[in-house]
Amino acid sequence: MKLATLRNGSPDGQLVVVSRDHTRCVSAGRISRHLQQALDNWQTAAPALAELARQLDAGAIAGQPFTPAEALAPLPRAYQWIDGSGYMSHLERVRTLKGSKDEELQSNRPLLYQGGSDSLSAPAAQIRVPPGDLAIDFEAEVAVVIGPVLMGAGREEAGKAIRLVTICNDVSLRRLVADDLQNGFGFFHAKPSTAFAPIVATPEGLGGAWRDHRLHLPVEITVNGVVYGRPNAGVDVHFDFADLIVEAARTRDLGCGTIIGSGTVSNRHDEVLPLKRDGLGFACIAEARTVEKIRYGRARTPFLKAGDVVRIGARDGSGRSVFGDIEQTVEVM
Amino acid sequence: MKLATLRNGSPDGQLVVVSRDHTRCVSAGRISRHLQQALDNWQTAAPALAELARQLDAGAIAGQPFTPAEALAPLPRAYQWIDGSGYMSHLERVRTLKGSKDEELQSNRPLLYQGGSDSLSAPAAQIRVPPGDLAIDFEAEVAVVIGPVLMGAGREEAGKAIRLVTICNDVSLRRLVADDLQNGFGFFHAKPSTAFAPIVATPEGLGGAWRDHRLHLPVEITVNGVVYGRPNAGVDVHFDFADLIVEAARTRDLGCGTIIGSGTVSNRHDEVLPLKRDGLGFACIAEARTVEKIRYGRARTPFLKAGDVVRIGARDGSGRSVFGDIEQTVEVM
Repeated sequence: MKLATLRNGSPDGQLVVVSRDHTRCVSAGRISRHLQQALDNWQTAAPALAELARQLDAGAIAGQPFTPAEALAPLPRAYQWIDGSGYMSHLERVRTLKGSKDEELQSNRPLLYQGGSDSLSAPAAQIRVPPGDLAIDFEAEVAVVIGPVLMGAGREEAGKAIRLVTICNDVSLRRLVADDLQNGFGFFHAKPSTAFAPIVATPEGLGGAWRDHRLHLPVEITVNGVVYGRPNAGVDVHFDFADLIVEAARTRDLGCGTIIGSGTVSNRHDEVLPLKRDGLGFACIAEARTVEKIRYGRARTPFLKAGDVVRIGARDGSGRSVFGDIEQTVEVM
Repeated sequence: MKLATLRNGSPDGQLVVVSRDHTRCVSAGRISRHLQQALDNWQTAAPALAELARQLDAGAIAGQPFTPAEALAPLPRAYQWIDGSGYMSHLERVRTLKGSKDEELQSNRPLLYQGGSDSLSAPAAQIRVPPGDLAIDFEAEVAVVIGPVLMGAGREEAGKAIRLVTICNDVSLRRLVADDLQNGFGFFHAKPSTAFAPIVATPEGLGGAWRDHRLHLPVEITVNGVVYGRPNAGVDVHFDFADLIVEAARTRDLGCGTIIGSGTVSNRHDEVLPLKRDGLGFACIAEARTVEKIRYGRARTPFLKAGDVVRIGARDGSGRSVFGDIEQTVEVM
């Protein structure tokens, strides 16, 4: 089952069921007005939504054309967005950045940060940043939406709580990371609104691509049409989503509709940009720059500037976009 | 105008208007089902709620008895909870704690951290913590609920966005603060669910007690019935709520219904516990312990333990509770 949220003038948008091939959709308003409401009533909403999806895919319902440009983030605002650190090679590569800490701590237990969830960006929303030399970066990640999880939950309970899967772009202002970390209270200014793909899928709706609490698909990133990275989100996972949820629930319950991010997808390799054919590349600029500094003595890849276009999408074996693509243009305010 | 949210089995509860003397309330369901919905439609909801309050206070509506024990947090879940650092004497006193940083940075611009907002505790909810020597502490703070604020907003726009005022208890697990700060990603495990007073008031509903973007009232804290502190929230304010909102909106829009905390209320003085008559005391245990260490060479005041009861309430000139009291018992899971 695949779901999306369409713009309808309300802050939570309109929940729709999307056909397997992403060409059509049908309003789920009869079941739930918006995705959070469906999550709040998942025991009854999920089977009803699945039945609607079955009818749509079977052609029993005609539906309407699905236009990703009309999509908001699946949860345009959420009660919680927690970003993790599932891929150690990301941390290792950016650890040289000023303000980063404690290698041993980070490999034993996943780092988590509490992100802003009051305004999650649509897949085609501009990356709006204030003026200044902020070192604008993207971070391509996998994200899951979970049901309620009790404090102290174990891996099994955590894994069962995963209801929906998608990808996101955790926009980062690298120049502000050091300040945020230095002041000791954690990321704040460095992490403006995260953008999400138009479609969320249930784990079973992903077939074999979802197993072992991780997404076994490459995530392709292009910048201004040139492939920047194609790391596989199922490879080099140090902490899977069950690990991240268990860690997040150490001292607190997690509310229904909490979104958990995997951290920047990152595979181990010793490539540098530009990508060679079949290369893996990077899912954020900061990693590429660190590797370039080591290899060439200086970073070559620039951070994003006004007008740059970042496209991020998970790809199946046939190269089709599994959640629809995130495509954002940088706009300096 | 005073509002509260009563338990009704739904995650967002039932919005009610509360009489000025807190004895009666009336359902606001005709106007908005819950507080977030009222905030989303504030231009029409606020005048309608104010008229309901007028009728309730005039006796034109009988209403029903208001029972604070039935109250949830005014927003039982919110899209954003940002806690600030308005009082420098709090930071100065706890700065000796391991992991705290950069004095100059902190006095020029307020520190902010992104808190979890998926599950905000009712005023009478237990403080539920996992077992272990976690150094359980309270932090009595003022909090405001704001309307939407655009990125880059100035003080005037920020001040006008303040719609509702209350107090909260930002529960802190001090033993986990160092870990959270050391790993560099900021507070997470050290800050479980924050509890809120049963009542939110509009700034104008507070009369002269709200001016200059701050609350001019003492906040009284008792632990197991003994007064622990009575600092005035309007005194020694280094950053007021307009400052905190401006800082929060530096690189992002702030969504409607965002809650901003003042940081632990803290007045400058050189008292130590136990409080002398008319003393100011402390609004968290960590400050008292730091002062004791300096004065006596060791901390005397213990952190909270299972069964301890913390009561927090803002008091008017007649000693009446302005938002109703937070009263929480510690429960180790």
